[in-house]
Amino acid sequence: MTTSRLPLARVLTMLLLSFTTGLPAQVSGDEGMYLFNELPAELLQERHDFEATAEWADALRLSSVRFNVGGSGSFISSDGLVLTNHHVASDTLHKLSTPDRNLIEDGYLAKSLQDELKAPDLELNQLVAILNVTERVNAGVSTDAVSEEAVKQRRAVIAEIEKESFDETGLRSDVVTLFGGAQYHLYRYKKYTDVRLVWAPETEAAFFGGDADNFEYPRFNLDATIMRVYEEGKPAKLDHFLRWNRNPLSEGELVFVSGNPGRTQRIFTVAALKFLRDDRIPYVLDYLRRKEILMQQFGLEGTEQARRARDELFGIQNARKAYTGMLAGLQDPQTFVAKRGREDRLLSELKKDTELADLAMAWSAIEAIQDDKRAMLDQTVSLRSTFAELAMQIVLLASEELKPNAERLRGFTDSSRESLMQELLSTAPIYRDLEQVKLADEISRLAIHRGVEDNLVQEILAGKGPRERAAALIEGTRLDDVEVRKELIEGGHNAVFSSQDPIMILARTLEPEYRIIREKNEQIEERERQAYAKVSQAITALEGTSGYPDATFTLRLAFGTVKGYSEDGKWIDPTTNFAGAYQHAESHKGQIDFDLPQSWMKAKDQVDLQAQLNFVCTADIIGGNSGSPVVSRDGELVGLIFDGNIQSLTSDYLYSDEQARAVSVSGVGILEALRSIYDAKALADSIGK
Amino acid sequence: MTTSRLPLARVLTMLLLSFTTGLPAQVSGDEGMYLFNELPAELLQERHDFEATAEWADALRLSSVRFNVGGSGSFISSDGLVLTNHHVASDTLHKLSTPDRNLIEDGYLAKSLQDELKAPDLELNQLVAILNVTERVNAGVSTDAVSEEAVKQRRAVIAEIEKESFDETGLRSDVVTLFGGAQYHLYRYKKYTDVRLVWAPETEAAFFGGDADNFEYPRFNLDATIMRVYEEGKPAKLDHFLRWNRNPLSEGELVFVSGNPGRTQRIFTVAALKFLRDDRIPYVLDYLRRKEILMQQFGLEGTEQARRARDELFGIQNARKAYTGMLAGLQDPQTFVAKRGREDRLLSELKKDTELADLAMAWSAIEAIQDDKRAMLDQTVSLRSTFAELAMQIVLLASEELKPNAERLRGFTDSSRESLMQELLSTAPIYRDLEQVKLADEISRLAIHRGVEDNLVQEILAGKGPRERAAALIEGTRLDDVEVRKELIEGGHNAVFSSQDPIMILARTLEPEYRIIREKNEQIEERERQAYAKVSQAITALEGTSGYPDATFTLRLAFGTVKGYSEDGKWIDPTTNFAGAYQHAESHKGQIDFDLPQSWMKAKDQVDLQAQLNFVCTADIIGGNSGSPVVSRDGELVGLIFDGNIQSLTSDYLYSDEQARAVSVSGVGILEALRSIYDAKALADSIGK
Repeated sequence: MTTSRLPLARVLTMLLLSFTTGLPAQVSGDEGMYLFNELPAELLQERHDFEATAEWADALRLSSVRFNVGGSGSFISSDGLVLTNHHVASDTLHKLSTPDRNLIEDGYLAKSLQDELKAPDLELNQLVAILNVTERVNAGVSTDAVSEEAVKQRRAVIAEIEKESFDETGLRSDVVTLFGGAQYHLYRYKKYTDVRLVWAPETEAAFFGGDADNFEYPRFNLDATIMRVYEEGKPAKLDHFLRWNRNPLSEGELVFVSGNPGRTQRIFTVAALKFLRDDRIPYVLDYLRRKEILMQQFGLEGTEQARRARDELFGIQNARKAYTGMLAGLQDPQTFVAKRGREDRLLSELKKDTELADLAMAWSAIEAIQDDKRAMLDQTVSLRSTFAELAMQIVLLASEELKPNAERLRGFTDSSRESLMQELLSTAPIYRDLEQVKLADEISRLAIHRGVEDNLVQEILAGKGPRERAAALIEGTRLDDVEVRKELIEGGHNAVFSSQDPIMILARTLEPEYRIIREKNEQIEERERQAYAKVSQAITALEGTSGYPDATFTLRLAFGTVKGYSEDGKWIDPTTNFAGAYQHAESHKGQIDFDLPQSWMKAKDQVDLQAQLNFVCTADIIGGNSGSPVVSRDGELVGLIFDGNIQSLTSDYLYSDEQARAVSVSGVGILEALRSIYDAKALADSIGK
Repeated sequence: MTTSRLPLARVLTMLLLSFTTGLPAQVSGDEGMYLFNELPAELLQERHDFEATAEWADALRLSSVRFNVGGSGSFISSDGLVLTNHHVASDTLHKLSTPDRNLIEDGYLAKSLQDELKAPDLELNQLVAILNVTERVNAGVSTDAVSEEAVKQRRAVIAEIEKESFDETGLRSDVVTLFGGAQYHLYRYKKYTDVRLVWAPETEAAFFGGDADNFEYPRFNLDATIMRVYEEGKPAKLDHFLRWNRNPLSEGELVFVSGNPGRTQRIFTVAALKFLRDDRIPYVLDYLRRKEILMQQFGLEGTEQARRARDELFGIQNARKAYTGMLAGLQDPQTFVAKRGREDRLLSELKKDTELADLAMAWSAIEAIQDDKRAMLDQTVSLRSTFAELAMQIVLLASEELKPNAERLRGFTDSSRESLMQELLSTAPIYRDLEQVKLADEISRLAIHRGVEDNLVQEILAGKGPRERAAALIEGTRLDDVEVRKELIEGGHNAVFSSQDPIMILARTLEPEYRIIREKNEQIEERERQAYAKVSQAITALEGTSGYPDATFTLRLAFGTVKGYSEDGKWIDPTTNFAGAYQHAESHKGQIDFDLPQSWMKAKDQVDLQAQLNFVCTADIIGGNSGSPVVSRDGELVGLIFDGNIQSLTSDYLYSDEQARAVSVSGVGILEALRSIYDAKALADSIGK
C-alpha cells in the first residue's frame, strides 16, 4: 500500500522532521502534482485535449477530503458518505476494535445509521480556499536575519496570518510552505470531526497478498472503506460529492487524481540525495526494522496481543518496504548520473549569468547543511509511545499557552488548538502491555544513542534497566484515562508541572532537551528554506517554471492515462478483474496472506468475474495519496488510489512513466463487491447520489 | 534455543571476530566451565561431596563430541549413535532436504542402516588429548614485539606446533588460547566426517512454541536428533559412550554438563563491557534485524522459498533474541555497579603492591583498544552469501598455499586443510534465488558503510544498482558445481587468478582490502591477548585462581543441581512432562508455532503423560553447549541441553544461579517419545548399549 502517514505518522513525522519541500525538475510525461490554484491548463489542453474549467476544478476540490491520519478521500453522496482506503481507515478500525470485535480482521457493515460507529479522533479536512500570502510572510522576516532570528520571525508572521484567518472565518487555517520556501499559501479548511464507519471489508480482501504483494502489480485488492461525516449528530448534507462512473476503464483513458501527496523531494540537490542515500534512509530503515521485530515479537505472545500490534505493524512494514525501494533506486549509480548531469548544467549556466551567479551559493549552502543534518540524525529524546507522546504534548502545551500566540511552537497556536485537543482527548484505547514494550524499547534506544552514562539517560533509568523502568512507569501512570488528561490540560501550567504521574514527570525531564533539539532542527529547516528558495529561483530563471511544487500533504491534482507496462520482457495489462483474484488465491495456496475471505469464497458464483477490480495509470502520486479519488474527464469517480507499483518507489525524487504506475481499486469493482459479496445493495444504491 | 554457532556461524564469527576470551571473576554458586585437564576436584568434593575420578572424567570426555556447525553432542551407543539437538542438526537437515523432502518440517526415521542419510559437510570432533604448550608459544614471541610482528610470530609458532602434532598423530590439532592469552593448550581431536542422520522429530515438536517460547521456561520441547558416525562405510565401533539413566530426576540432584560453550566474556573490563553495550551489540542487532527481515521477505515469496530460508531465519531469530537479552542486562545500571566495584577494588589493590602495580596499565590499554574496535565495527568487505564466501576462501587459499606453512593465515595451514576442504567441497545445495537476494543486500550494505562513491564499491557495482548487479553475478557464476570448485582449487593460483567466473572476479577484487582489515583486526586481538594476559595475572595474584577460563568452543565440564526458581513471585518447578505439552498446545490454540505435530496428537493415548519432558538446572552453560549431554554422578545420561532461560542471557558476562537456568530435554522423555510417538522401539532399545 502507498505510505499512509499514520498510525506511523508520529514516527515518520519525527524521522522526517527536516525534510524540506521544493520545486521539481522539468516535467516529463504525466509528471506533476499541481496546486488547485495553479492548474496546468495549457499542458492539459495540449497533451490531453482537455479543458480544466473552474467549475470542474472547484467541484473536484470540494469533493476531496484530507484525513488527519495521513491519507486522502472523497465525498461520494449528498448525505455525507466518504470513500477512502481500508489502510487509511485502519487506524480508526483498530481504535474501534476490542478483543471481541476485530473490525480490522472481520470487516464491518452498518445496517442502519444507528449502527455507524464514531471514530474516536478522526478529523477530515475539505479545502475551501487558497490565498497566496508569500509577500506578507517574507515581509515579516528581515532579509538579513540569521537563522535563529528568522525562525522566530517566520513563526510569528505565520501564526498571525493563521490566527487572523481563523478568527475571521472559523475555518482551520494553515500557511503552507511551497516551492521549498519560494511561496507561502494560506489554506482554509472546513473540518469534519464526527466521522463514522459505514462499511469495511476484511483485511484478507483489503490487503490480499499481504506484505509479499504490497507494491506489486498485478493486484486484486479491495482496499476500500466507506465512512460518513456527521454534523450536529446527523449525516452532513453535502453540496459537492462525486458521481460514480459505472463503465469499465479502457487503456489510454485520461484520468485525474485529487489527493494529498505527503512529501516528495524532487528539488533535492545531489548533496541532499547523497545524505538521504548514505545516512538518513539507512538510519530510518534500521529504526523501522527494529520496530517491526518488536511488534512481531509482541504479537507472538497471543492472539489478543497480535490484534493490538497488527495495525501499527502493517504501517511499519509498509514504510520499510517503501524505504527499501527508495534506497535501491538511490544506490543505482544511474540515478545520480541523471541528477548530477542536470545539476552541473544548471550551475555552469548560472555562472555565465552575472545576475544569477550568486544563486549558485545555494548549492554549497545545502551541501553544508547535510553535515548538520547528519549530526542531528540520532539527536532525539522523543520516546515514541502513546503515553510518552501524550505527556510531552501536554507539557509543551502548558508552557506554550503562557506565551503570546505569535511566539508559540507550530502546533500550539490558537488556530491549531481544536485539532490538538481532538488528538489529546481521543477515546481510543491505550494498551498498557503494548505501551510497556514500546517504552522499554525506546528507553533502550535512547540509552544506545546517548550512552547509559549520559545524565539524562541516568535520570530516566533511575537505577533500573529499561524493561524494569518501563514497567514501573506504566504501573504508575493514569494517562489512559481521558478525564485525567483533560484535568491536567484544564489545570494549565500549575497542574501539569506539579503532576506526580510518573510519565508526566518523565516528559518534564525530557522537555528542556526536546526544545533544544527542536530548535536546532528548525534552524536547519530555515536555512534549507532560504537555500531552496534560491534554487527554485535559479531553476525558474533557467528552465522556466515546471508548474508544481514538491508535495506538502496538501491537495493536488495529478493526471495520467490508464496504461500497462513491460516488465522483464512481459506486458502487464493495466486492469485486473475478480476472476484474477480467485486465480491468484488458488496459485498461492498455503502461503500466508493469500487466502480470500469466506465472504468472497461463498459469493464466487454471484460475482461478475469479469468486472474490473484494480487498474494502473501514469498519474504522479506518492504516500498520502492513499484514498484519493480517481476521476474521469467528466469528474466522475472511476477509482480509488491505494498503492504504487515497485517501480514507483523512486517517485520521491524522480518521476518516470516508463514502468512506474499508480495502482487503484476500480469504482466498478467496489460496487460489484458491495452488491455481490457484502450484501450491501442499499449502500451501493445510495452512492453517487 | 541456545545460540548454536551455525548456520549463522560465518556471520557471527565475523561479527564477533575480535571477541577475546579470558578469566572470569571469583566463582559463585555452581559457576564455572572447567577444563577437563584442570577439573575443580576440591570444589566438587566440598560443595557436592563428589569425587571426580580420572576414569569418570576420561570416560565422559571421550563420550562427548563437538559439531563443526557450532554445537555439542555425545556418543550414546557402541555402534556409533550420536545424540544432539534438533537445532544443532538442523543445518544438516536443511542441507539434506529438497522441495519434496522437508526433513526440518516433517522429521525423519531411518528404518535400517541403508536409510541413514549422509550429512554433506558435517565434522564431529572427539577430544583425545590436551597438552599445555604455553611456554613454547610465548618463547616464540619476542616480549618486546610490536603487535604487527607479534601477530606474525604467534601465528608462526602456533602453526608449527599444530603441524608437528598433526604429522606425528594424524589427529586434528588446534592450539587454543585460554585465560585471555595467559595459557595456550594443544587440543588433539579424532575427527568423524562420515555422519548420518538416523532420527529427527518434526520442528513442531523440536521447536514447540517457536520464537515466542524460545529462551522461556517452563518448556515442552523435544529438541533432539540422533545421528550415527561411520568409519570406512560402516557404523563406527566405539569404546566410549554414555549409558542411559532411566529414572526420573528429582529436585536437588547433582548433574554435569560436558560440552563446548562457544564464548563468554566474563573477564571483560568495564571499558570493554561499555563498548559491547553501546556499540557492538547495537551494531550486531541492527545487522541481525536486517537479515531477519530479509529472510522473512524472501520466505513470503512462496512455500519453497520459505523452506529455503527457514533454517537460517531460525538461527538469526535465535541470535537476535539472545543479543537482545544480553543488551537488556548490560543496560541495567546494576550490572555495572557490580562490575565497576570489583574493578575499582582490584585496581586500588594493584596500586598498593609495587610488584603488581605495572599490571594496572593493562586496564587502560584495554580501554584504548575499545576505540580501535569501535572504528573497525563496520570495516568489513566480507559479503555474506555462500557463493561470495566460498569464492573468497578459494582466493585466499590459492595465495596462502604459496607461502610457507608458518606464515599462513589461520584456517589455511596444512593441519587445517582437511577441514577446509570438507567445507569448500560440500555437496549441500546452494539456492541461486536466495543467494541473489542475500548478495544484493550485502552489496547494498557495503555501499552504505563505504558510500556509493568509494572506489571499491564503484568497482563492485560496475555501474549497476545492487539488485541488478547481484542478478548479473548470480546469472554468471558456476560455483554451485562442486566439480568447478574442485578444479579451481586443484588448479591452484593460476586457475584461481585467471578464472572468469564473475563471483571469483568479485572475490579477487575484494581480497586486498579483506587482508588489510583482517590484519588490523588481528593486531587488535594480539594487543588484547597481551593486555588480558596481564589482567589474568593480576586477578590470579590478588583473588587466587578462579579455576576456569572464558569459553572458547572447546570441551568444558559444568555442574549444578536440578532446581526450580521464583519468577514474578511465582515458583517455577524444575521439571515438565508430556501432559504439560498437551496443555500448553491447548491453551495457546490458534497461535503460530503452538500446534503439536500430528504424530503427537495421534499418540496422545499411548504416551505416559507423567513422563518427564524438560528440566532446568543451575549448570553454567552458554551458546555452543547446545546438544551437550547432561549426566548423573554415575556418568549416565539424564538429559540433553537445548536452551537457557531468559534470565540466563546475561551469562555471557555474568553468572548467576538466582534465576538463570540451563534447560534440557530429559533422557527419559526422549526414550518415551521414541517408543510411544515415533514408533522407533528398535532405536530406543539400542541406545546406551
